[in-house]
Amino acid sequence: MEKLNLKKFSPVPFTNVSIKDSFWSPKLEVNRKTTIPTEYQQCKETGRIDAFKLDWKPGQGEQPHIFWDSDVAKWIEAASYSLMTHPDSDLEGLLDHVIELISSAQQPDGYLNVYFTSIKPEKRWTDLRDAHELYCAGHLMEAAVAHFQATGKRSFLDTMCRYADYIDSVFGTEPGKKRGYCGHEEIELALVKLYRITGNERYLKLSEYFVEERGQQPHYFEMEAAARPEGESSFFGSFMSHIKDMHEYNQSHKPVREQDRVTGHAVRAMYLYCAMADLAGELGDESLVRACERLWEHLVLKNMYITGGIGQTRSNEGFTFDYDFPNETAYNETCAAVGLVFWNHRLLQLNCDSKYADVMERALYNGVISGISLDGKKFFYDNPLASLGDFHRQEWFGCACCPPNIARLLASLGEYIYSQNDSEAAVHLYVSGSSTLQIKGKNITIHQQTNYPWDGNVKFSFDFEGAVNFGLKLRLPGWCKYATLKVNDQVVSIEDKLDKGYIQLEREWKSSDVVELELAMPVERVHSHPAVRQNIGCTALQRGPIVYCLEEMDNQSSPFKIFLPRTSQLHSTFDETLLKGVMKINGEALTIEEEDWVNTLYRSDDYQYKKITIQAVPYYAWDNREPGKMAVWINELR
Amino acid sequence: MEKLNLKKFSPVPFTNVSIKDSFWSPKLEVNRKTTIPTEYQQCKETGRIDAFKLDWKPGQGEQPHIFWDSDVAKWIEAASYSLMTHPDSDLEGLLDHVIELISSAQQPDGYLNVYFTSIKPEKRWTDLRDAHELYCAGHLMEAAVAHFQATGKRSFLDTMCRYADYIDSVFGTEPGKKRGYCGHEEIELALVKLYRITGNERYLKLSEYFVEERGQQPHYFEMEAAARPEGESSFFGSFMSHIKDMHEYNQSHKPVREQDRVTGHAVRAMYLYCAMADLAGELGDESLVRACERLWEHLVLKNMYITGGIGQTRSNEGFTFDYDFPNETAYNETCAAVGLVFWNHRLLQLNCDSKYADVMERALYNGVISGISLDGKKFFYDNPLASLGDFHRQEWFGCACCPPNIARLLASLGEYIYSQNDSEAAVHLYVSGSSTLQIKGKNITIHQQTNYPWDGNVKFSFDFEGAVNFGLKLRLPGWCKYATLKVNDQVVSIEDKLDKGYIQLEREWKSSDVVELELAMPVERVHSHPAVRQNIGCTALQRGPIVYCLEEMDNQSSPFKIFLPRTSQLHSTFDETLLKGVMKINGEALTIEEEDWVNTLYRSDDYQYKKITIQAVPYYAWDNREPGKMAVWINELR
Repeated sequence: MEKLNLKKFSPVPFTNVSIKDSFWSPKLEVNRKTTIPTEYQQCKETGRIDAFKLDWKPGQGEQPHIFWDSDVAKWIEAASYSLMTHPDSDLEGLLDHVIELISSAQQPDGYLNVYFTSIKPEKRWTDLRDAHELYCAGHLMEAAVAHFQATGKRSFLDTMCRYADYIDSVFGTEPGKKRGYCGHEEIELALVKLYRITGNERYLKLSEYFVEERGQQPHYFEMEAAARPEGESSFFGSFMSHIKDMHEYNQSHKPVREQDRVTGHAVRAMYLYCAMADLAGELGDESLVRACERLWEHLVLKNMYITGGIGQTRSNEGFTFDYDFPNETAYNETCAAVGLVFWNHRLLQLNCDSKYADVMERALYNGVISGISLDGKKFFYDNPLASLGDFHRQEWFGCACCPPNIARLLASLGEYIYSQNDSEAAVHLYVSGSSTLQIKGKNITIHQQTNYPWDGNVKFSFDFEGAVNFGLKLRLPGWCKYATLKVNDQVVSIEDKLDKGYIQLEREWKSSDVVELELAMPVERVHSHPAVRQNIGCTALQRGPIVYCLEEMDNQSSPFKIFLPRTSQLHSTFDETLLKGVMKINGEALTIEEEDWVNTLYRSDDYQYKKITIQAVPYYAWDNREPGKMAVWINELR
Repeated sequence: MEKLNLKKFSPVPFTNVSIKDSFWSPKLEVNRKTTIPTEYQQCKETGRIDAFKLDWKPGQGEQPHIFWDSDVAKWIEAASYSLMTHPDSDLEGLLDHVIELISSAQQPDGYLNVYFTSIKPEKRWTDLRDAHELYCAGHLMEAAVAHFQATGKRSFLDTMCRYADYIDSVFGTEPGKKRGYCGHEEIELALVKLYRITGNERYLKLSEYFVEERGQQPHYFEMEAAARPEGESSFFGSFMSHIKDMHEYNQSHKPVREQDRVTGHAVRAMYLYCAMADLAGELGDESLVRACERLWEHLVLKNMYITGGIGQTRSNEGFTFDYDFPNETAYNETCAAVGLVFWNHRLLQLNCDSKYADVMERALYNGVISGISLDGKKFFYDNPLASLGDFHRQEWFGCACCPPNIARLLASLGEYIYSQNDSEAAVHLYVSGSSTLQIKGKNITIHQQTNYPWDGNVKFSFDFEGAVNFGLKLRLPGWCKYATLKVNDQVVSIEDKLDKGYIQLEREWKSSDVVELELAMPVERVHSHPAVRQNIGCTALQRGPIVYCLEEMDNQSSPFKIFLPRTSQLHSTFDETLLKGVMKINGEALTIEEEDWVNTLYRSDDYQYKKITIQAVPYYAWDNREPGKMAVWINELR
């Protein structure tokens, strides 16, 4: 029986994509020049780097945490990606040094974990549910793969292969092995990367084992807890006692194919679903594709914020229930939005359906980059959709997973723009620059020229020899209601060319061809499904992919008491001086007077309104100026 | 220097008030016949009664809690009040038995506390901040006073005087005494009751000491914590670690006269402020009256729910910040609303200003009685203003302070209706029945006849000999916009007679006189101050003193997506068959269709509306029928 080929597309690697984009290039430069070095400094100063010396003693700063390894790993990954687009011998040297230190921490049997070597070595593998051992291993594997791709150096890769081999000797269904899996999914998708770079099927099988074993009976985490000595608790112990269902928390409540609802911790969920998508492709397993589709529908149709943020509550850093979208307390961990991008990108390769790219775009342009300040030095862990003015980005966090996650995503942004197969090139995102790919044996360069997301005009031109017959798929964004397409100045119909939301242009292309896509970008007043009680009677402004918000400093009123009449004209203007250059939205609105409420808290007389002009700015750019209230969802006056 | 007489009025004791009211009498009967016996059963079955045997051992059911004594005490208080209106030899016998058991637990030195005698005797007085010792003592004192008033029996009173004497020997400013006070205020107001019944000034001075000492430097709770052995924590320890300011939590952040903002735990605050009001009257201390007024303004103008609920959050069972009124998560502990009634009642005696009676009424008719089911068997601890359908009254609670608090308030309800002084009788609440008081040496009976709160017509008639010159003060409720007054069928102007919200009728009254007050009771659409972000664009229905809500079972829609047009006619009808007989409100409204939102979470197209009729029922009566969503604040369509 032949393995199904479910890999309909492959990403065009970011090393084949050059970004020269007025929106993204500055952000990528800040990421490279400020954020990545800043994150190294934070790792260094907090002791995360030196922890790999395995010689921490009380009194020497903070005791290493169980997840510190992963912060350093993601930084290495980001730095490695950065080397791939911008070689830098100093950075490469620094990476060598850090990697040498990490490798020095590897035990003779291959084990590599700061906490469970230098702090609690006797507890190795005793708390898979909480202790993050395999999670850290996974991030280190991703880092090693990236480092090898960036430098060709094998040392870190070899180190991590040794660790993976050792892990493989410990876990599995074979007699003598532990039938366990990690409480924080991650290693599953990392092992696929390790497999792809080494060709060693052992790693693919191990990933498959971890994913298949999850949620089987008897339940490993229950057995693990029962085996624990009386009085001893898991690592998080009572800290987690408020969580109703720990199995749902870490998506081990059922075998993965039986899961049809997103549940639990959002980042864990995203990483698991990424692995499921990876394995679907590698193994030709349609049932995993179907499982992903069910989970995707439940997530995107009932549990995703308009910003692409996911995971409504701090309480489990995850999901609550369908159509529940608290605004002020929206947790929306940055890592979860990053994970959402990762997952949708993988789904795109299995099924080039614009719904996946729409979600990827929604997260990228809103809930992901809201996680970093414009100057690249501060971060949001949670990304609320309303603020009373007291919530701000921070330079670092005790649990610092989000900063390096943003950094590695931005450093490899090009990976998310294009995909291809033997006969088609797909454009998922509109970003100025070029992409080089091989189709039908020919090297083809596709150029994009656009001022997206500020306007919706995108121009494609090409560089290759002769003529090539291939399909060019251009995504028609879900937010777009009116579009015009021209090929070589001739208007071309769109509707008859749509294939799962992509405009499919099949022709014999010549290097001189020019394709122009005009995506109309009016200001839209968006509404939530009526079951979303928090947003009834409200509207959110969206223009193209950008979701907007009101910040107090731009408006003569708290955003919470502003009413935007449906009939108000809204104007968008590009302002170079504002927030590093954004399209701002202005219009007339009403606010409620307070002066006639002196000494009154409740009254039957109606509000008195006052006319004001409002200014909305992109949500991703909030909290970069004076502190103040913020709201995405604004009262609407019909 | 003469002591100021600040006691402008005294309550007409509930033993002088007979209630024959179609609204209250059924509730009082349920309280007497069902709730009070049920609460005894709960105390008995949970071990709260037998705990006074001081012989609990592990394995014998739940270990006594530090506050169990107070649950039994409040039950005794409620039962005693019940005896005073409805003699019952069985109940009296039961009380004798329980009291005997309690008294048997008294130690030779006078100490009386279950937990710190039978569980942790070595910890007596070591944790005033958390351990509730003086709090329990206070409730036992209140119970003993009530029992003596009800039966003339001195045993319990003597027991508690011995305890009070012992407490007085331990605490104070004199050398050798602890300069401490309780972390949960209560004993302060109880000692005033003990003083009033015994005439022993020692108890008044002790109360004064506790109130004055609170919040002084050096801070007793800090010293207490510092004196604790290394590694040992206070009783609540890390359970309280999320509370930003424990001094504010228990209102010990400043001396009481310097406190100008309600802060911290709501019940603690109410009990403290009650004591401050009591002491103001007993000591002739105007500065305490001023302090109460400042606190009252801050509470009522910026921190009180429309239902009279107070204490916005579960997190500290207390206050958050001004104009913050979350609806679903409104904590509004029943005890806090009860305390609000207690405090406003006391303030009324110092200053007969209708604003206090308005608050007392608002709480009584809404946020207090929402705390008990119509059948008297189940209770709310928290009283939210919106529900997703999964929040219901319970039969009991681990911390069971609320049920007996409602019971003792209802059992003594008559206390809150009338006040008097030498020359005036004031009517604060409109409740059918009679009140007997002595004015100018004469016994006067005032009869009220009304169908309040369902309509606003109140008729007063009298019984006494001859003619008496006195002032009859009738409160003009704050919610009332139109009123008509007739004396002996003659319309009498109101405006020129208003004295701090009371219609002051000074005349030589004859027994044949009849006074008729007509308070117009249209349905009002109430709005919150614009700074209340949670209620912008919403309205709450109120009719007379009753606040209404929408319950899902009465409406063809989730209440959260209903829009009530401002122009909709709203009709009130009395329905005998509904919720034991209530005025219901009906009208036309709109709800949002969901059918056109299939597979859509966000869209720019507007909502589609559907006409429906809505029915609103009194908030106090919600969750007495089928479970379902509930909302007090409804979207308003302008």
